[in-house]
Amino acid sequence: MDINTLSFNENGLLPAIVQDEQTGEVLMLAYMNKEAIERTLETGEAWFYSRSRQQLWHKGATSGNRQLVKRISLDCDNDTLLLQVEPIGPACHTGEQSCFFQTIQEEQPSVNSVVGEVVREIKERRDN
Amino acid sequence: MDINTLSFNENGLLPAIVQDEQTGEVLMLAYMNKEAIERTLETGEAWFYSRSRQQLWHKGATSGNRQLVKRISLDCDNDTLLLQVEPIGPACHTGEQSCFFQTIQEEQPSVNSVVGEVVREIKERRDN
Repeated sequence: MDINTLSFNENGLLPAIVQDEQTGEVLMLAYMNKEAIERTLETGEAWFYSRSRQQLWHKGATSGNRQLVKRISLDCDNDTLLLQVEPIGPACHTGEQSCFFQTIQEEQPSVNSVVGEVVREIKERRDN
Repeated sequence: MDINTLSFNENGLLPAIVQDEQTGEVLMLAYMNKEAIERTLETGEAWFYSRSRQQLWHKGATSGNRQLVKRISLDCDNDTLLLQVEPIGPACHTGEQSCFFQTIQEEQPSVNSVVGEVVREIKERRDN
């Protein structure tokens, strides 16, 4: 990969989505600078740039919950990365497997689908 | 959802990862402001904020490739959203299903796994 084709933001960072390669679960979003990308490519493990600590961050260096990188993809406008990984442990500092554990909206089954379910149930009881 | 708990960046935006609810494929990353989130909640379809056009953007309004939002999740530090959607068409303006169609690094099979494959092949030919 030519790192110069990447479109970094005004802070020299790119968002990187991390997905469990096996389950497809989206685990976290973190940011990478050039050096984080280089270290990730060299080591095969996920490195990011911590915006709060303002330093390079080897994911799992302290917790042991490293992420082995299986595939890196780039989006159509070259400003977002997708890392497909084998996680050694939970991605989230809370201990949750994924950082996206707060569901804020979930589609309710529609009235039609509920009615359909009741009708199926009635037919099934009648026929058996 | 209380929109005030969300942690918007200095431009009043949040990154939103869009994932196909059925296949688990990560489709795109886009940005939402408060109004995009409100419209998404009201309509059940994905709305974003276009940074290049600097305006609210109803995904698929022109192309027809709308995204029906099935679930919205929030990450542990309240600054990234995950939208799980039923896509009506390709997510990418190039016509690709996902914007992440450029693979820039893929783990090569290890020497051990290649040797294992050859050994299996030899055994199979011998036994049949």
